[in-house]
Amino acid sequence: MSTAYERVMARQRQTQILAGVSGLLGWDQETMMPKGAADQRAEQMGAMEELLHARRSDPALADGLAEAESADLDEVSRANLREIRRQVDHATKVPADLAAELARVTSRAQGVWAAARAADDVAAFTPMLEQIVALKRDEAAALSDGSAYDALLDQFEPGATGADLAAMFGALRPRLVALRDRIFGAEQHPEPLMGTFAEDTQIALARDVAERYGYDFERGRIDKAVHPFSSGSGSDVRITTRTDPADPFNCLYSTIHEVGHGCYEQGVDPAYAFTPLGHGASMGVHESQSRIYENQLGRSRAFTGWLHGRMTDLFGDLGMDADGFFGTVNRLQKGFIRTEADEVQYNLHVLLRFDLERELIDGSLTVAELEGAWNDRFEADFGYRPDRPSQGCLQDVHWSVGLFGYFPTYTLGNVYAGCLNEALRRDVPDLDSALADGDPSPATDWLREKLQRHGSLRTPRETIIHAIGGAPSEEPLLSYLEAKFGEIYGF
Amino acid sequence: MSTAYERVMARQRQTQILAGVSGLLGWDQETMMPKGAADQRAEQMGAMEELLHARRSDPALADGLAEAESADLDEVSRANLREIRRQVDHATKVPADLAAELARVTSRAQGVWAAARAADDVAAFTPMLEQIVALKRDEAAALSDGSAYDALLDQFEPGATGADLAAMFGALRPRLVALRDRIFGAEQHPEPLMGTFAEDTQIALARDVAERYGYDFERGRIDKAVHPFSSGSGSDVRITTRTDPADPFNCLYSTIHEVGHGCYEQGVDPAYAFTPLGHGASMGVHESQSRIYENQLGRSRAFTGWLHGRMTDLFGDLGMDADGFFGTVNRLQKGFIRTEADEVQYNLHVLLRFDLERELIDGSLTVAELEGAWNDRFEADFGYRPDRPSQGCLQDVHWSVGLFGYFPTYTLGNVYAGCLNEALRRDVPDLDSALADGDPSPATDWLREKLQRHGSLRTPRETIIHAIGGAPSEEPLLSYLEAKFGEIYGF
Repeated sequence: MSTAYERVMARQRQTQILAGVSGLLGWDQETMMPKGAADQRAEQMGAMEELLHARRSDPALADGLAEAESADLDEVSRANLREIRRQVDHATKVPADLAAELARVTSRAQGVWAAARAADDVAAFTPMLEQIVALKRDEAAALSDGSAYDALLDQFEPGATGADLAAMFGALRPRLVALRDRIFGAEQHPEPLMGTFAEDTQIALARDVAERYGYDFERGRIDKAVHPFSSGSGSDVRITTRTDPADPFNCLYSTIHEVGHGCYEQGVDPAYAFTPLGHGASMGVHESQSRIYENQLGRSRAFTGWLHGRMTDLFGDLGMDADGFFGTVNRLQKGFIRTEADEVQYNLHVLLRFDLERELIDGSLTVAELEGAWNDRFEADFGYRPDRPSQGCLQDVHWSVGLFGYFPTYTLGNVYAGCLNEALRRDVPDLDSALADGDPSPATDWLREKLQRHGSLRTPRETIIHAIGGAPSEEPLLSYLEAKFGEIYGF
Repeated sequence: MSTAYERVMARQRQTQILAGVSGLLGWDQETMMPKGAADQRAEQMGAMEELLHARRSDPALADGLAEAESADLDEVSRANLREIRRQVDHATKVPADLAAELARVTSRAQGVWAAARAADDVAAFTPMLEQIVALKRDEAAALSDGSAYDALLDQFEPGATGADLAAMFGALRPRLVALRDRIFGAEQHPEPLMGTFAEDTQIALARDVAERYGYDFERGRIDKAVHPFSSGSGSDVRITTRTDPADPFNCLYSTIHEVGHGCYEQGVDPAYAFTPLGHGASMGVHESQSRIYENQLGRSRAFTGWLHGRMTDLFGDLGMDADGFFGTVNRLQKGFIRTEADEVQYNLHVLLRFDLERELIDGSLTVAELEGAWNDRFEADFGYRPDRPSQGCLQDVHWSVGLFGYFPTYTLGNVYAGCLNEALRRDVPDLDSALADGDPSPATDWLREKLQRHGSLRTPRETIIHAIGGAPSEEPLLSYLEAKFGEIYGF
C-alpha cells in the first residue's frame, strides 16, 4: 500500500517531467525554431500549459495533498509538499477565466509594447498597461487577502514582502547614488576597449571560460539568442549568449552570467530530479548565482588579470596593461538602459522600477502618470532626464507580459551575491590565486556545497541563511562596491 | 450545440498538437540534446507517449467517434474520422501490458543489437529478436483476426497487404537481378569522384539545392545528424544531413532525399493543420516523394549537368566532363549494405528483408535460421556472400526496435516514384530544360498540386491513383531503370 505522500509524489513526477518538455519548447522557440512556426508553437505552448494547469488544479491532487500534509514527514518530504502546495494554490485560486484573460491580454500586449517602444509612443501602450495592471490586481486578490504586491512578488520570491525589500533597498539607494556621484566626479576614468573582435573567437573564449567555471557541456550546450537566457534543469541545462564584434565583453559576461544560472541548475542534488526540489529556490537566489559568477568573480582584479593575458593571446595587443584592463572591464558610463548598466548603476535602475510598480499595483500611481514619475525619479538618481520613452518607461518588456513583482529579484540577487561573496572569501581565503590562474572552480565548489546542491529544499531566504551562516543584508554588497570602485577610480 | 463530429475534432486537435510536441523532442534528441540528457529525455518521451495513449484510448473518445461516424458527412470529415478510427483502434486493441512490454524489450534490444553488430555476434542478439518476434505476433493478433504480417504492415502502409506487395515485388526482382548482372558485365564503368571537398561548402550547396527544389527555410531548417531524417509538419518541418569530406554526394543526395520528405509536409494544405489529414499519407507515399526528388530528378542527366557546373565552380575541376559526371553520380558498386546501395540494387536489399520478415512473422522461418537464410538469399541475388553478420543480417536497426512491416514501404515508395515520374514527365514535357538550369521547382509544383497538398485525405493507394490517374505498377520504375542504366553502361 502506498502512502498519500507517495501517491502525490508519483503524480507530481509526471507533472515535473511535462513541465520540462514545456521548457524545451521555450528554449527551441528562442534558438532554433523557424520564423514561420510561431503560430504553431503558440498552440503547442498553450496545449502544454493547459495540460499542466489541469494536472495542478485537479481536485484529486488537492485531496491527496491535504491527506499527505497531515502525516508526520521528514524535511525533504515536507519541502516537497510545501512546493506542491504552492503550485496547487496558484492553479486553484486564480479563476480559469481570469487566467485565460491575462494570457490573452499579455500575449497581445507584447506586440503593442514593441510597436509603442519603436515609435516612442507611450499613449499607444497606456490602455494596454491599464488593463494589465487591473488584471494583475484581480489576480493578486484571488491569491491572497493581504498586500496585492506581496501576492505577486511571492510567485517569484516566495516569502519575500514588499515592505521588507523596501527597507533593504531604502538602505541601498542613497549609498549607491553617492557612490555613483563620486565615480563620475573622479579625475581619472578607465579607457574603453577599442577594436574589432572575431565573433568565432569570442564564442570559443566564452566556451572555455564556461568550462573553467565548472559548467558541464555533457549536460548542457550554448547557442546564440537575441536576449541571452538559461533554460532547463537536471541533466539538460542550456545557456545562450550573443556576440558584438565591437564589444567582446558583451558575449563574455553575458555567458558568465548564464553560466551562473546554469551551474546552479546543474549543481542541484540528482536525488531531487523530477521533484519540486530539483531546481533553484527562487528568482532572487538564481540571480545571486549569475551575479556572483559575473561580477564578484568574473570582474575581479584577479580574474581580469588572467583574462587580459588570454584575450591578448587571442585578439592581439589590447592597448592597455592588466591594471588598466581591470578598470576597463568595470568602467561606468552614463546611460538610460538597465540592461546595459554596470554593477553600481544597475540596482538604481531596478529600485526605480520596484517603487513605481508597487505604486501602480496599490493604486497610488496611475498608468497615465507613469512616464512623468519615471522621468522625475530617474533624474533624481542619475542627474539627467530620459529624452524619449524608449530610453525610459518603455524600455523593458516585463510589465507588458504581466511580470509585476519580478524586478526586485534582480537587486535581491545582487544583495545575496554580496553576502555569498563575503562568506566565500572567508571560507576560501586563497581564491584570488586560483582566479589569477583563470580558475574560478573553487568558487563553484563552495557554492555547490553550500547552496546549489540543495535546490528548493529550503525557502529562498533560508537557502541564503544556510549558505552564509547568518541573516542576509545589503552591507556586504555596498562595502564590496565601495572598496572596488574606490580602488579603480582612486578615492 | 456542437455536433459529435465537432467535439471529436476539437479533442483531436489537442492530440495532434501534443503529438507535434513529442515529435520535437525526437528531433532535439538527434540534433541538439547534450549526451548526458538521454535518461531525462527518455522520461519525457515516455510521459508524452503515455499522455497521447491515454487520450487515444479514452472511452469517451470511442463513444463520441462512434456517434460521429453515424452521421452523414463530407469527404474531408469522413477522412478525418477514418484516421482517428485508426488511432483509436490501435490504442484500444493492444493491451496496455503488451504495449509496455514491447516498449521495454525494444528499448533494451537497441543496445543489445548495437553491441552484437559491433562484435559480429549473431547469437548475442538471437534471444532478444526471438522475444520481439513473439511480441509482434501477439500485437498482430490483438489488432486483427487476419494475417499477422498484414496487421503490422497496416501501421505503416494502411490498406496494403503482404500478398499484394509480394506479387508486385515478385515482378520486380528478376528484372532487377538481370539489370544488375548486365551492368556488372558491361565493358565500361564510370569513374568514381576523387578528392577532398570542404564540408562548409557541401552544406552551402545542399542548402542552395534545397531551396531550388522549393524547400521553405522560413518553415524549416537543416542540421547535421548521424542518420539523416526529417521531422515535423505544417509550418515547422526540419530536415537533417551529414557530410563526408571524401564524398560530397553523401551530403547532397541525403539532403535532397530529406527535402522530398520535407516538401511533402510543407506542401500539405494549411487547412488541414492540426487535423489527422495534415501530414503525409503513409511511409510508402512519403518515400515516393523523397525518392523521386533524389533519383528521378536529382540523379537525372539534365540536373547532374547543372550540378557538374555548380560543383566545378565550388570545388574546382572534378576531373570529368558532364557526361562522365552523370555516370559517376549513378555508378553501381558491389557491396553488402542497404543504405549505401544505388537505385538498381537498393530494392534487392529491401525485397530480401521483406521476404524474410514475412517468414519470421508467419513462423516458417525461425530466428535461429535467419543468418543462413539471409546469406543464401543474398548470394542468390547478388552473386556473393556476406562474410560477417554486420554485413548481413545484423546491419539494420529496424527489427531491434520492433519495426516489422516497415521495410517494404521503401520499395513501394520507389515503385510509386516511378509511376509519379512517368505522369510528371507526361504533364510537364519540358521539365528537363528546367532541370538543366538547376531548377527542379516545376516538379515540386506538379507534385504539390497532384499529391502533396492532399495530405492524408485519401488512403495511400488512392493518393497515388489520384496523382497519376490510374493504378500503380512496377513497370514504370523498371522501364526507367533499364533505360537510364542501359544508356550509362552502354547496352
